[in-house]
Amino acid sequence: MIHYEDDFIWKLDKELESKIVESYAKIVEEKEQGISGYFTLGEDSLEIIEDVHNDMKSNTFIEQSDTVVVIGIGGSSLGTKAIDSILKHKYKYARRMLFLENPDEIDLSEKLESIEKEKTLFVVVSKSGTTIETISIFKEVLQRFSLDYKGLDSEQIVAITDKNSPLHKFANEYGIKSYMIPHNVGGRFSVLTAVGIVPLTIAGYDTKKILAGAANMVARFFKGEENHILKKAALLTTHRKETPMNVIFSYANCLEDFTKWYVQLWGESLGKIDKHGKHTGLTPIGHIGSVDQHSFLQLIMQGPRDKTVTFIKLENFEKKIQVPKVTLKFLEKTDYINGYSFNELIDGECEATKESISKQGINVDVITIDTIQEHNIGELILYYELLTSLCGIMLEIDAYNQPGVELGKEILLQKFQK
Amino acid sequence: MIHYEDDFIWKLDKELESKIVESYAKIVEEKEQGISGYFTLGEDSLEIIEDVHNDMKSNTFIEQSDTVVVIGIGGSSLGTKAIDSILKHKYKYARRMLFLENPDEIDLSEKLESIEKEKTLFVVVSKSGTTIETISIFKEVLQRFSLDYKGLDSEQIVAITDKNSPLHKFANEYGIKSYMIPHNVGGRFSVLTAVGIVPLTIAGYDTKKILAGAANMVARFFKGEENHILKKAALLTTHRKETPMNVIFSYANCLEDFTKWYVQLWGESLGKIDKHGKHTGLTPIGHIGSVDQHSFLQLIMQGPRDKTVTFIKLENFEKKIQVPKVTLKFLEKTDYINGYSFNELIDGECEATKESISKQGINVDVITIDTIQEHNIGELILYYELLTSLCGIMLEIDAYNQPGVELGKEILLQKFQK
Repeated sequence: MIHYEDDFIWKLDKELESKIVESYAKIVEEKEQGISGYFTLGEDSLEIIEDVHNDMKSNTFIEQSDTVVVIGIGGSSLGTKAIDSILKHKYKYARRMLFLENPDEIDLSEKLESIEKEKTLFVVVSKSGTTIETISIFKEVLQRFSLDYKGLDSEQIVAITDKNSPLHKFANEYGIKSYMIPHNVGGRFSVLTAVGIVPLTIAGYDTKKILAGAANMVARFFKGEENHILKKAALLTTHRKETPMNVIFSYANCLEDFTKWYVQLWGESLGKIDKHGKHTGLTPIGHIGSVDQHSFLQLIMQGPRDKTVTFIKLENFEKKIQVPKVTLKFLEKTDYINGYSFNELIDGECEATKESISKQGINVDVITIDTIQEHNIGELILYYELLTSLCGIMLEIDAYNQPGVELGKEILLQKFQK
Repeated sequence: MIHYEDDFIWKLDKELESKIVESYAKIVEEKEQGISGYFTLGEDSLEIIEDVHNDMKSNTFIEQSDTVVVIGIGGSSLGTKAIDSILKHKYKYARRMLFLENPDEIDLSEKLESIEKEKTLFVVVSKSGTTIETISIFKEVLQRFSLDYKGLDSEQIVAITDKNSPLHKFANEYGIKSYMIPHNVGGRFSVLTAVGIVPLTIAGYDTKKILAGAANMVARFFKGEENHILKKAALLTTHRKETPMNVIFSYANCLEDFTKWYVQLWGESLGKIDKHGKHTGLTPIGHIGSVDQHSFLQLIMQGPRDKTVTFIKLENFEKKIQVPKVTLKFLEKTDYINGYSFNELIDGECEATKESISKQGINVDVITIDTIQEHNIGELILYYELLTSLCGIMLEIDAYNQPGVELGKEILLQKFQK
């Protein structure tokens, strides 16, 4: 279960109510016309899980492996990493996941040195099939581990890409197993396609439950049972001049990668030139509580009133460490927390911070996840994807493309191509 | 060596030139009157290093230790962590550093489980001496490892705090070694006080060189040799309505914690109510390239023109991994990078991204660090601290306090105190 509640000071007026009705009609259209394919992944991707299970049975290498290395960047890694980060402490028997993303030599060296070839499955993920960072790292992996991709070691490699992409053709040429990404699902919406589902299933996570959570959210939303998403989208987009930034404050370290996923989803989907030719969008900022109360809170409280704040918190952690009932001489002032669990402390910090921000007249909302479980992750992902689509509709932009990143790629090519 | 260059489209006019002159006079005053004590830490903290070395000689426990655990949050950990993250790959012989910051049970459990009592020195850091997260975690550490802080194990604990704080008194009571934080250096400016210098020196880093870099930057600035800092502060603060956000794009994973340190420094120092009673400040955002080109770049390129962008890049990494000169069938399109090192790739990405952003008419600047070495870290820290002070002066605020975080602490106390 996830609860959503807001303390928005803004109210819906008639104009916004009718905007909501229109936008709802448009998102129904997006779903029905398949303008984006993410809406139905909760059902569509079940087949992939079955495929993976079958492939795992026939793959003689899998059993000896204890590590899944994902080679990918941006939409090809962020979502998978977010889910792994949330779940890994729960699944002691899951395979270790390692992400080779940035072409940073220090980081790459360290990670590559920690890989044992005999125990590692390599999953290379690129929607276009030619992402320069990813394919370059893939080449390094092939060479460093002397992977005989044309023969003996082909079972050790999995490719995830668009149908008929260069990477797909490469995989086909050498009998490397590949999974396809639906053409109408962009990178940042693709975590529940093969992009995330394949490596997470191989790692040992119960991805069916993640999909069930996603499907459930979509069903509820289109039955009109999650209208708070429409309201939030309407308020955030309408007041975007006043509050151009949305800060997520996640009160759990394991949500840090999830907030990074949100930053991509939100930033890349909404930062666009609108149909009137105007630059528009909302800026996502991710923080972790209570740590960043000691870093970013002062700015929210006393800086310009240009932010909305969304709190994400966990209700029931599974471990329970109590602050010892110990009194240290001269430090008696801190004893008020003795005997409470650290969960209660961090939860109290979240509540106190929310109240203090809200008292300033800043618009806040709270997402409460009752327990860390697969179903909730699927729901949370879809919550944000639906919210993003709706914001896109209300901003009158295409939330599913990213034309702004092409120029940099061209300049890069010119720099190196002689 | 660090190079600073900007591609600011904004120009200085007469009014700004005279604002710069005034602000320079004020920062000289801040230094001379000791309004903040960070300016002279490059010299002042040398003594601490000597103390630590002496203490290490007489401490019978140190030699057997291979881990330094820092218990602290916010300004008590961020800077230390930033330096450790930048240097640790260089110092194979340094002690492992571990940071217990957030009262998050999952994270705490994992880290606590990785600690071997017999090999670990615990450094508890709290300026006030009563930071609730820190002292609660400290209690847990004492209990879990049965640390006899009143007797046998007192050598295994070090306290860093304000003079006469409750933590200082606690340490004195039991013969626990303590180091003082100067009263006129706030948490986020304190990395080069005992806060960072003590644990980093114990870990084995050459902190003298860090201080030398810091001292050098301060000396150059006050000789008028780093006037670009004044210019940047004047332009960023003057245009704060137009561009309320400054994005740092660091092109190296090892700088991620440094960008977090910058976010605290910038956010907490500048987010204030100014002397006219107005909410003011600039919002800091940290990103890592090239990874976040696949996440945040689209928003910078096509979203609202409300950001300035600062690139931080490394010129000479020490490792050299070449992209293999390998042609994969169907993937020939990616061969243009073959034979170049991954450093050259990431550096090219940085250049290409900078150019593409600059072409949009967005104000960018670039900080180029020639090699990862202690001296440069000291310089970079002081660059940002001086920039922050100057922005504070120009915004007519007190950059050194943080009154906005008190309300949350009060509410927290009310919640738990019965």
